[in-house]
Amino acid sequence: MQDWLSAQAAAQPDRPALIADERVWTYAELESLAGCWAAFLSAQGLAAGRVVAALLPNRVEYVFLIHALARLGITLSPLNTRLTPHELGDQLQQVNAALLIACEETETAARRAAEPMGTRVLLAEAVAHQAERLPPTPPQELALTATQAILFTSGTSGRPKGARLSFGNHFWSATASAFRLGILPSDRWLCPLPLYHVGGLAIVLRSCLYGTAAILQEGFEPGRTLELIERHRASLVSLVPTMLHRMLGAHPEHSLPESIRLALLGGAATSPELMQTAEQRNLPAAVSYGLTEACSQVATLLAPASYRKPGSVGRPLVFTEVQIRDVEDRPAPPGVYGEIVVRGPTVMQGYHNDPQATVQALRAGWLHTGDIGYLDDEGDLWLVQRRSDLIVSGGENIYPAEVEAALKAHPAVAEACVVGLPSAEWGQQVAAAVVLRPDLSVTPDELLAFTRQRLAGYKQPRRLRLVASLPQTASGKIHRAAVVDLLAQSDHAD
Amino acid sequence: MQDWLSAQAAAQPDRPALIADERVWTYAELESLAGCWAAFLSAQGLAAGRVVAALLPNRVEYVFLIHALARLGITLSPLNTRLTPHELGDQLQQVNAALLIACEETETAARRAAEPMGTRVLLAEAVAHQAERLPPTPPQELALTATQAILFTSGTSGRPKGARLSFGNHFWSATASAFRLGILPSDRWLCPLPLYHVGGLAIVLRSCLYGTAAILQEGFEPGRTLELIERHRASLVSLVPTMLHRMLGAHPEHSLPESIRLALLGGAATSPELMQTAEQRNLPAAVSYGLTEACSQVATLLAPASYRKPGSVGRPLVFTEVQIRDVEDRPAPPGVYGEIVVRGPTVMQGYHNDPQATVQALRAGWLHTGDIGYLDDEGDLWLVQRRSDLIVSGGENIYPAEVEAALKAHPAVAEACVVGLPSAEWGQQVAAAVVLRPDLSVTPDELLAFTRQRLAGYKQPRRLRLVASLPQTASGKIHRAAVVDLLAQSDHAD
Repeated sequence: MQDWLSAQAAAQPDRPALIADERVWTYAELESLAGCWAAFLSAQGLAAGRVVAALLPNRVEYVFLIHALARLGITLSPLNTRLTPHELGDQLQQVNAALLIACEETETAARRAAEPMGTRVLLAEAVAHQAERLPPTPPQELALTATQAILFTSGTSGRPKGARLSFGNHFWSATASAFRLGILPSDRWLCPLPLYHVGGLAIVLRSCLYGTAAILQEGFEPGRTLELIERHRASLVSLVPTMLHRMLGAHPEHSLPESIRLALLGGAATSPELMQTAEQRNLPAAVSYGLTEACSQVATLLAPASYRKPGSVGRPLVFTEVQIRDVEDRPAPPGVYGEIVVRGPTVMQGYHNDPQATVQALRAGWLHTGDIGYLDDEGDLWLVQRRSDLIVSGGENIYPAEVEAALKAHPAVAEACVVGLPSAEWGQQVAAAVVLRPDLSVTPDELLAFTRQRLAGYKQPRRLRLVASLPQTASGKIHRAAVVDLLAQSDHAD
Repeated sequence: MQDWLSAQAAAQPDRPALIADERVWTYAELESLAGCWAAFLSAQGLAAGRVVAALLPNRVEYVFLIHALARLGITLSPLNTRLTPHELGDQLQQVNAALLIACEETETAARRAAEPMGTRVLLAEAVAHQAERLPPTPPQELALTATQAILFTSGTSGRPKGARLSFGNHFWSATASAFRLGILPSDRWLCPLPLYHVGGLAIVLRSCLYGTAAILQEGFEPGRTLELIERHRASLVSLVPTMLHRMLGAHPEHSLPESIRLALLGGAATSPELMQTAEQRNLPAAVSYGLTEACSQVATLLAPASYRKPGSVGRPLVFTEVQIRDVEDRPAPPGVYGEIVVRGPTVMQGYHNDPQATVQALRAGWLHTGDIGYLDDEGDLWLVQRRSDLIVSGGENIYPAEVEAALKAHPAVAEACVVGLPSAEWGQQVAAAVVLRPDLSVTPDELLAFTRQRLAGYKQPRRLRLVASLPQTASGKIHRAAVVDLLAQSDHAD
């Protein structure tokens, strides 16, 4: 099909496409810049089929890069800016990135990660400067089967896996989302979510397909989000519940700006209390369940149903099917808990270079999410628990296995168990119980200083307790629920 | 892909899908009825690849039939209820219809048309009665490449040609239309256009894809249209300019009901005066240019731009390309008149069983519309003249060649020239100048009684003048413009 950006540049050149830093780029301007960036990347010898990684905050250059890569048939691998060089290096290696685009703020981490791999690092500021002098590369046909991005998502193994999302995945996600949430030509979608998460990236691609405007926010700060909504008359905003909690908390006396016709909540469970507050403050909040492997939204419940059924995430989007499976992978009847499986045109192509994990996740076309939920009599989905061991803190997914591996890498640690403790603001917080080797010793602070080298800040335990032994189940496995109780009672915070 | 109706029945079973005769059918109900109708049609021995014709007004049974045929992979051929049995018979033969679905009001014409062809006629009332007792046929995968309908459109030859529209054509038309006009989950689209026209049929399919409601009106009557909008809180309505003219005329003191967020005008040129009235009455009117061969909309201009540029039809929908071609089929620069050509995913598969006409219309992927227009500096399309000889009266297309052939079939007629005269209410009215054979005579009334047997009422000349000879151009062709002048001055109306 026709490249989305050039199609919009032809259909409505003067409409706003991108808003950031108090500037507006029209579709014609964005299209031209994407062409210049594509010309620059071509001149670096990059061609279709390669992978370019990005380590960038929510800057307009990120959007130029996304569209330039789409034009060239090059796959983007957006890296989480909160990762350590150690973690970044692993991901660069997995995707065999031809190039890493960083910026001044991320340059140090980028170079430390990329240099051992021999990956070239370019700064977005320099690319922008050089690209603008080049004649734009003209658009080409877009293949819906082409891989738009490889997005990393951790697995139970603890090693992040790259979910391959095609343009077709994005197309169907955008279309089904439009039919569920509605879309108006005047829409402006504020994106305070990082573009390296599928919830952020999807806003950029979706808005382009619709011909509406995306508003970028660099780093979340509740007052700034409210200011951006007001100033640019944003009609839609995607938030993780923590962000909404903080926004509502920051301005307890005000309702949100009236331009907002819908706040889309996702990335973590939304508490009934938060929904109640949203209702009291007249905020039309939609609650969604989604995951990277399904290109964001799987199910979404609009207000006022979202107030009436707090905790439910509603029905699957059109063309997406959801089933609940029992332990033997057979469909479970309504009301019965089981694993949530998803089928449809938004489901990823597979994990990059990981046929084993792909086969495990995609069985007979059904994505096995590992998340636990049930369908009620009305067909609405209820998410009971994210993948049993997953911790979701402030919208970021943290896999205990990964944090445990980092703790165990310290020579003094014999055993470690990492769990999520409830937190009103963050949803969950990372906590760890650690057993030391009899002959060695380390303080919690020393241990945290050690893991800080290996783990992104948001994965760091906020509470760490040294224990003589870990509680066990009858079958000899670590009793995680007992560890939660133990740590919840503990005062030994770091 | 998943069948649209069953996908919506799964995604939102309780939402309204269809409203007519003061009743509401939910998606679950519509899905079940479509399944029953499919079961009935299967039991008649019909299977994928066949064609079923329909001669029906805007009734709910028409919608059940549309979805039932989609489920079975059977192509619909919707026939214009205003045609004579003679005209209908020709179309039934062209599509080799396995069955003709009529109703009590159309039964006589249906039987007169179908019997000479040996085509079976069934009445919708009887089908509904029998189908409801059958277990529904379950949905199957929908192939976007399958032909959803064969819709007749007259050509310059005078013999109607069947444009083959696929589900993919409808899908892309619906999607691009949603992105241009916006779509809200609460939308209810009133359809006073006949379902046998692409503008009406598209509302049914589009609403289903969106998961919104379609409201059927049987036969246009301005007061009833206003009443339906008000009663069912319609947010969208598709109209031909004549309808809007009559609605605004019928209630000169009122503005239209407030629920309407957009009135989509198409099917004929909208006069600047009508747009001015719409603006004064606060009616958000969008003006579109479309044609059957492009599955309805090609370009659409939204208010307030439609008030600012009365006469323009705006930019092409996204993914649809429009060019203006000179007489040698080369692209013309902005501001230069030429033939409008259209390319994109909404362009028909071709004319049914007419490779010659198909090759002539579709050249290198570009649909040659025969319509004359130009693109302005802003890229907005202006329609200067419908296919040079086409008459558009009250939203119906009338091809002079067809009316001329009917007149010339009378033994006393030597020559005939049919043209459109301007009309404030109807856009244009059919008028004819006729030269008789020297030795024979016939009165205008006798001649009109003769053509009434062969031509639908809307194609009948409203003014007919017997003349000694037809004005000719220097090259000896009939000088149509001079005929228009001649008939416009004439008082010899029928």
